[in-house]
Amino acid sequence: MSALSSARDADDPLAALRAQFQLPGDLVYLDGNSLGALPLAVKEAVRDVVEHQWGEDLISSWNKHDWIRLPMIVGERIAALIGAAPGQVLCTDSISVNLFKLLATALDLNAPRRVILAVEEDFPTDTYIAQGLVELLGDARCELRRVPASEISAALNDEVAVLMLTEVSYRSGERHDMQSLTEAAHAAGALMLWDLAHSAGVIPMALDAWDVDMAVGCGYKYLNGGPGAPAFLYVNKRHHGRASQPLSGWLGHRNPFAFSPDYAAGDGVLRYQAGTPPIVSMVALNAALDMFDQVSVEQIRTKSIALTEYFLQGLESRPLLQSLVCLTPRDASRRGSQVSVAHEHAWGLSQALIEAGVIVDFRAPDILRFGFAPLYNRFADAEKALDILARVMAEERYLEDRFATRPAVT
Amino acid sequence: MSALSSARDADDPLAALRAQFQLPGDLVYLDGNSLGALPLAVKEAVRDVVEHQWGEDLISSWNKHDWIRLPMIVGERIAALIGAAPGQVLCTDSISVNLFKLLATALDLNAPRRVILAVEEDFPTDTYIAQGLVELLGDARCELRRVPASEISAALNDEVAVLMLTEVSYRSGERHDMQSLTEAAHAAGALMLWDLAHSAGVIPMALDAWDVDMAVGCGYKYLNGGPGAPAFLYVNKRHHGRASQPLSGWLGHRNPFAFSPDYAAGDGVLRYQAGTPPIVSMVALNAALDMFDQVSVEQIRTKSIALTEYFLQGLESRPLLQSLVCLTPRDASRRGSQVSVAHEHAWGLSQALIEAGVIVDFRAPDILRFGFAPLYNRFADAEKALDILARVMAEERYLEDRFATRPAVT
Repeated sequence: MSALSSARDADDPLAALRAQFQLPGDLVYLDGNSLGALPLAVKEAVRDVVEHQWGEDLISSWNKHDWIRLPMIVGERIAALIGAAPGQVLCTDSISVNLFKLLATALDLNAPRRVILAVEEDFPTDTYIAQGLVELLGDARCELRRVPASEISAALNDEVAVLMLTEVSYRSGERHDMQSLTEAAHAAGALMLWDLAHSAGVIPMALDAWDVDMAVGCGYKYLNGGPGAPAFLYVNKRHHGRASQPLSGWLGHRNPFAFSPDYAAGDGVLRYQAGTPPIVSMVALNAALDMFDQVSVEQIRTKSIALTEYFLQGLESRPLLQSLVCLTPRDASRRGSQVSVAHEHAWGLSQALIEAGVIVDFRAPDILRFGFAPLYNRFADAEKALDILARVMAEERYLEDRFATRPAVT
Repeated sequence: MSALSSARDADDPLAALRAQFQLPGDLVYLDGNSLGALPLAVKEAVRDVVEHQWGEDLISSWNKHDWIRLPMIVGERIAALIGAAPGQVLCTDSISVNLFKLLATALDLNAPRRVILAVEEDFPTDTYIAQGLVELLGDARCELRRVPASEISAALNDEVAVLMLTEVSYRSGERHDMQSLTEAAHAAGALMLWDLAHSAGVIPMALDAWDVDMAVGCGYKYLNGGPGAPAFLYVNKRHHGRASQPLSGWLGHRNPFAFSPDYAAGDGVLRYQAGTPPIVSMVALNAALDMFDQVSVEQIRTKSIALTEYFLQGLESRPLLQSLVCLTPRDASRRGSQVSVAHEHAWGLSQALIEAGVIVDFRAPDILRFGFAPLYNRFADAEKALDILARVMAEERYLEDRFATRPAVT
């Protein structure tokens, strides 16, 4: 390590948190934007829920260990990270399923408007789910309209029921201005639905103060909840009187254990529960959230900007890296916690980096993503990644035959 | 223990399996129909997926440990238990969410028919989900019609798009004849959707041979997958050409990692995936299914009938238990793996039994359920439950003040 990255790490007020994660040996893990690393406390929590709660207390755990309230308990902890007062956030299902619920809610709240406005660059599941809803409801009741991000304002007309955007692009790492876009949506009479998959836990936000209508987010990226951890959703309190959602399963009922024949929606956000949640996975996420008891999202953001800045400067200053086209905004306020570069041989590059112990990811067709998770990534990680990237580029290792074909999952 | 139950346990070819479960001390656990006990193998599997796969192999586990195919892998193992050839069963989401997908599929396949026919006695989430779909689609496209179980045949007319039934009633333990009802539905031009929550893993069935159209089932009851384990769904191969479902998330896409802008449904049942699944909970279920490598569902059913028969005879032969009204059919072929009784003080009875170490459950307003899980329940458990029940009845312990109020979750 150079003296520079060592000095930066020595000055980092968050440096001690890394020891609370399991991070294998010399690995430089820059994929926390895809799957966050394992917080050590999760191991004991999962052991306890399996071996003690399930194994010993069995069915009584629904009360004794409060499994029944876990979606709310975890939801409230996430609420504190995204600027939401209590009673508006629930941990439940996946982002895809939650988007379906919320888009249906939005169309209902804002009828007869029928347009879902989205941008072409966002993660596909958001538009796939909107397409599923269009298919189900028919064109007369629902339309998905997609525009380039630069044309959002122009497309916000009086047909738009809901504007659905992801704060930070999974491809470029570019960040939208949530507050001004929420205002623009409202000015056009549209509701605002944010996908916080690449923001929650790494970018401060104020959903209540900005009067956001709805949001979804991910448990397994910067929240470190484990593979496929349950997602979360937010519904602003001012909609609770009228909001309804179609996945009206028994746990969203006002009184699930009355087993009454007709559905009656639970209070507020509780009605967004559907079936029985995967408790073991949700307990892992709950334990992972303990990390956020020690640090504020503002502190995390400060380090995130410093890490991406350090990495971007490294990209710019090393002649060997000039052929990489940076997709991430140079203005720190306009980027999330990742740096994306485009390169003709991005797939081969990603594989050569992984072989060399730098875990990054590839996004088709030509993007290489370097994700920075401030809870455990060091400036030394950024530097080592730059060094190894430069070596891989110099040796043109990405052209080697074994990187010629891509597996199904990348 | 009496000589009788000891002799029955000594003769039980499945007796040795109990040692592969964690079952606390003297507890008589008769609630496996609500939450199955912990198979010991699950502990190691969960430790491995958390501490080794997630903790060490991180994002590479999606390929290296085949997380990406886990919904199919687990699905195929369940398929073998329910008489389904490969390629038709998927482990995903919850029963509630899966019912939504399948009811939408059924209405689409069988348009312009618009009636979902269900019975009044079934578990409420099934009808709640149907009500959510009716609310979303409007009366012109969807109607939920509920009849008493005795009137199913009469209600099967040419308006019915799909008949949705649960094989074994969660309340009474009564079992429908899947084959003849499926035939009746087909004769009326309706599709047949079975809820196997209280059947999978404890009652043999032949979904393919009976030409069932669709089914859902539960991972956390007789499959012992842990609290809130992911559910499963079955879609008969002959529908794969036309079946579509509205929760079209990215993992149901033909090529999720192409990140193409438009949804294109994956092959066959794979299109019923929506978002990223909760891997830790799904790995627990996968490990729990190892139990079924050692025993056939036919063997399990034989023991299940013997256990419920033993318990019913005990209820009938003990004078102290005559005031309990048995709701479960006396004919073994017409019941599942539970015995339900009604009693004015069912709540107090359930609590007094639990205090005395017999774990049963209560279903409002007046039902006491005794679930028998043949993989780990013994004849001695049935006998001890009868003995303690008789004592509680004799002492009228259920009238004690501390049983006067019910908590939210029962």
